[in-house]
Amino acid sequence: MTRLVPELLRRRLPILDWGPEYSRQAFAGDLVAAAIVTIMLIPQSLAYALLVGLHPQVGLYASMAPLVLYAIFGTSRALAVGPVAVASLMTAAAGQVAAQGSPEYLGAAIALSTVAGVLLIVMGALRLGFLANFLSHPVVSGFITAAAVQIAAGQLGALLGASSKGESLLEILHSLVPSLGKINPVTAAIGIAGVGFLLWARGGLKPLLLGMGVGDRAADIVSKVAPAMVIVATTLAVWGFDLKARSVAILGTVPGGLPAIALPPIDVSLWTKLAVPALLVCIVGYVESISVALTLAAKRRQRVDPDQELIALGAADLGSAVSGGFPVAGALSRSVVNFDAGAQTPAAGASTAVGVAIATLFLTSLLLYLPKAALAAIIIVAVLSLVDIGAIRRTWAYSRTDFAAMIGTIVVTWLDGVEAGLVVGVGLSILLHLYKTSRPHVAVVGQIPGTTTFRNVERHAVVTDPEILSLRVDESLYFPNARLLEELVNDAVAANPAIRHVILECRAVNTIDVSALESLEAINHRLADGGITLHLSEVKGPVMDQLKRSHFLQALGGKVHLSHYDAVASIKPELAKSTRAAPRAVAGSAAGVESGRPSQPE
Amino acid sequence: MTRLVPELLRRRLPILDWGPEYSRQAFAGDLVAAAIVTIMLIPQSLAYALLVGLHPQVGLYASMAPLVLYAIFGTSRALAVGPVAVASLMTAAAGQVAAQGSPEYLGAAIALSTVAGVLLIVMGALRLGFLANFLSHPVVSGFITAAAVQIAAGQLGALLGASSKGESLLEILHSLVPSLGKINPVTAAIGIAGVGFLLWARGGLKPLLLGMGVGDRAADIVSKVAPAMVIVATTLAVWGFDLKARSVAILGTVPGGLPAIALPPIDVSLWTKLAVPALLVCIVGYVESISVALTLAAKRRQRVDPDQELIALGAADLGSAVSGGFPVAGALSRSVVNFDAGAQTPAAGASTAVGVAIATLFLTSLLLYLPKAALAAIIIVAVLSLVDIGAIRRTWAYSRTDFAAMIGTIVVTWLDGVEAGLVVGVGLSILLHLYKTSRPHVAVVGQIPGTTTFRNVERHAVVTDPEILSLRVDESLYFPNARLLEELVNDAVAANPAIRHVILECRAVNTIDVSALESLEAINHRLADGGITLHLSEVKGPVMDQLKRSHFLQALGGKVHLSHYDAVASIKPELAKSTRAAPRAVAGSAAGVESGRPSQPE
Repeated sequence: MTRLVPELLRRRLPILDWGPEYSRQAFAGDLVAAAIVTIMLIPQSLAYALLVGLHPQVGLYASMAPLVLYAIFGTSRALAVGPVAVASLMTAAAGQVAAQGSPEYLGAAIALSTVAGVLLIVMGALRLGFLANFLSHPVVSGFITAAAVQIAAGQLGALLGASSKGESLLEILHSLVPSLGKINPVTAAIGIAGVGFLLWARGGLKPLLLGMGVGDRAADIVSKVAPAMVIVATTLAVWGFDLKARSVAILGTVPGGLPAIALPPIDVSLWTKLAVPALLVCIVGYVESISVALTLAAKRRQRVDPDQELIALGAADLGSAVSGGFPVAGALSRSVVNFDAGAQTPAAGASTAVGVAIATLFLTSLLLYLPKAALAAIIIVAVLSLVDIGAIRRTWAYSRTDFAAMIGTIVVTWLDGVEAGLVVGVGLSILLHLYKTSRPHVAVVGQIPGTTTFRNVERHAVVTDPEILSLRVDESLYFPNARLLEELVNDAVAANPAIRHVILECRAVNTIDVSALESLEAINHRLADGGITLHLSEVKGPVMDQLKRSHFLQALGGKVHLSHYDAVASIKPELAKSTRAAPRAVAGSAAGVESGRPSQPE
Repeated sequence: MTRLVPELLRRRLPILDWGPEYSRQAFAGDLVAAAIVTIMLIPQSLAYALLVGLHPQVGLYASMAPLVLYAIFGTSRALAVGPVAVASLMTAAAGQVAAQGSPEYLGAAIALSTVAGVLLIVMGALRLGFLANFLSHPVVSGFITAAAVQIAAGQLGALLGASSKGESLLEILHSLVPSLGKINPVTAAIGIAGVGFLLWARGGLKPLLLGMGVGDRAADIVSKVAPAMVIVATTLAVWGFDLKARSVAILGTVPGGLPAIALPPIDVSLWTKLAVPALLVCIVGYVESISVALTLAAKRRQRVDPDQELIALGAADLGSAVSGGFPVAGALSRSVVNFDAGAQTPAAGASTAVGVAIATLFLTSLLLYLPKAALAAIIIVAVLSLVDIGAIRRTWAYSRTDFAAMIGTIVVTWLDGVEAGLVVGVGLSILLHLYKTSRPHVAVVGQIPGTTTFRNVERHAVVTDPEILSLRVDESLYFPNARLLEELVNDAVAANPAIRHVILECRAVNTIDVSALESLEAINHRLADGGITLHLSEVKGPVMDQLKRSHFLQALGGKVHLSHYDAVASIKPELAKSTRAAPRAVAGSAAGVESGRPSQPE
């Protein structure tokens, strides 16, 4: 069957790969996983819709079509797509082009999902998935930690019956603090109890169930649906004790029925306005999704195609847009549960969509008395699990530049919002990397006596010759560090009048760009003016190929030597000759070098 | 004497180094050089002032104090500071905050010089000279070529008696073309004759003088003062034939007398507006200056301190500002003449300033009949010598990415002006570099039979083992390429079910950042899930030091081996053991490896 389908079509429609071989057994696994994920997804989708600032049913709308489309286009067999916390927060930030609660606000969310979908598909078609790589780990990790804290703070108002609004942590705290006097005690009790139960459920529920004789996997899964228990319990409590009369904010009427499918309105000026936020939403969503997908795929040695994933997530966003939803992504927690519960194919996602559709058709009336504080509790506990203090500590220990990029991202996110935080983070990590490579590690090297090996004179007992300067640069030579090399060589030669040969060891040089080439030419030229010869050693194949396309090798005073040892060995006799003509006191150290073994085939 | 002066003061005031030892002989050399440079500088300073859009005397003002200050603070013994073409064009572009010809326009030029001076001094004090390195050679070269063509086009109006104005080549051509019908034939005759003479003087004057028995150096220098001859000849012609009556635009009254020294007015809002243009002016000026200074210093094995040069050029800009001038820099042509004519110390610059002062006091009345077309001719010929088509061709041959950055700079400069051109150029070169390193060269390596050397399986006849995957990455591992490595390893392992060990050879890896560390951890983890062991080989000292500060080495399934040969050699026996337990057909290729010589001390 699969042989008959052209290769490109099969790559673009992975369902053609697994669909024809879909077995009853796989269906059983998918169905169990889908049932559990559905129970997780319903409260989360309601909560994330509120987080965006939309009516709760919009969250349900974003949990149907996207899942079906991902099942058709996606290459991961376990990724659970739908509303996620960080993308929802970013949607809320981007939605500020309209007043929250207005039809234009929903329109902006739909437009954002449309633009994000189109961008993802274009990136996929052009194989631009590598763009996501420019979000470095420390920036993503710092951003998610900062966003999680900010989301949690933003939910404190709903949790306590106070108010907290704003695009940055600063603004949220600014609105929250004055309203703390107006806390609704009943709401706060529900909210705090919800948070308490959910936190306990993470660590305590599973051992309890195990103690009650429940099987390990079942206990694991039941503890994951704790949010659904909170929903049921708090809804019953509000209804039973008529807490609405005590001013507890409830979800109210959630209209049932499936979403109307409609093409999003074409609004080029709005789309242009949302282009940058959409790019950020879709890249962050993609990075989250692909990380989870790769991790889960590796456990079963399955393949994930990163470029096809762009297309699949783009289709999911477009699916959300046409059914009146907001941007979606692959969810960390639900994907892991999906995988653990035995999902075999993307059909599990489609079955989840059916589950959500059934709930949307028949169960929304039960949500009337659901207290908003319970949803706030679910969001807070979900996002706080994303806060990764350990990552901050590990990054500090490992690299100060990565740490600086991370902290910059966090601070700017908190002070100025999610978009500024991401943009500053990416900019910082690029600039800090360039800064680092602009000051490469450069060592003067000498020969380890009795070997053909040359090492740093400061770390090893080595033999050097006063007339030969051997330099090893531990970095590609390119524009940020090209002129530094000129200065280094200039200074070294000015400080040591005896030097008559300079050899650059290039084994760590992966590229030489035009700037560095011009610097090398300048160095060669200036050294020649001062009667000094420049040599290169251990130049890599691809770099040598490139140098051959320039005039540098013709102009080079010395030669390009295969190994550093060869370089020194071939210079020695020359020096000796001219030394006889005008004797100099170099014999002692020269002897050490000459006792070295002949060059190895390297 | 020099021993008594503290080190820092001596570094900050290089005059303390050479001043106390200043000899009569050095003075003689400096004086000759100064006289020649003065004759070059006077017409150039008038012309560049007109290029900025200021009164000609402002050019003279910018040619006194800056030279004296550079003599005190500068470390180059030959750099001739003063008005230069590219900085003048950039000043004209930045001056657009006010109407050309208005007092506010002069104020903007002075403010630009002030801000540029302060920025340079701050950069020097903070040792931020490396920032200039982010202007790559192709970007600078492309920018100067583009600016030169644009400056020349902008002068065509004055040269022909037509009109040409604008901030970009596009705008200039747009204003020039309709005015070509209104060319003043007499003006055009003077202008074209001037250009013709100057072009001929470059190649033809020196041989002619040599043929007349003039000495080589004298002939060389006389051919460099051709612009002064043009000035004298055309002024006499305009005066003698009363060409003013034929509508030839003349310079008019140039007020004599030295500039009033005054602190520039403090105008924070104007300074803020000019911050970016000032940064660009001062960095471009610095790059030009330091290139010339380093080249000339190398010829006599002298030192130039790049950070002190920032301070010296900053002082020069501030000197220009307080005497009512515009930003200055080290001039390529005048510096070379200064050097060739025998300048020994920065005192030559100070003497040049005295020469300009004398001219400003006594000779400005002679400039009344100087035709503007003559100055236009001088500018055109001067800047066209900066056009470097060869550099474009060489860059194309050498590197497509560098070529793209260069062409991007040129095109944007012509379409949108000098500032946009530079900013786009820097952005492009950074992005293209990141793109290149995001797709590093990765080779599967195998052992060259009978050696300890491992090489690319696609380039060499090597021996590999189906159960061992040896990968060499020719790039530092950092965020743009971190995830690529994950995908590569994932795909390779998914495609070869026999693989049981993966070894990454790291000799070309100069750094591993946090993103790459997390990717390595993910790779290690996923491989372990699939029953495969990850090893590293040939990890460099500084990288190893960093890895030791993480938990990676504890989590690593395999080991870090000193050489790739060691790695394969230590894995073999393990494989052999488990192969005996469950035999596999690997003996053939394994034999090749085992016949290899023992590991060398590397």
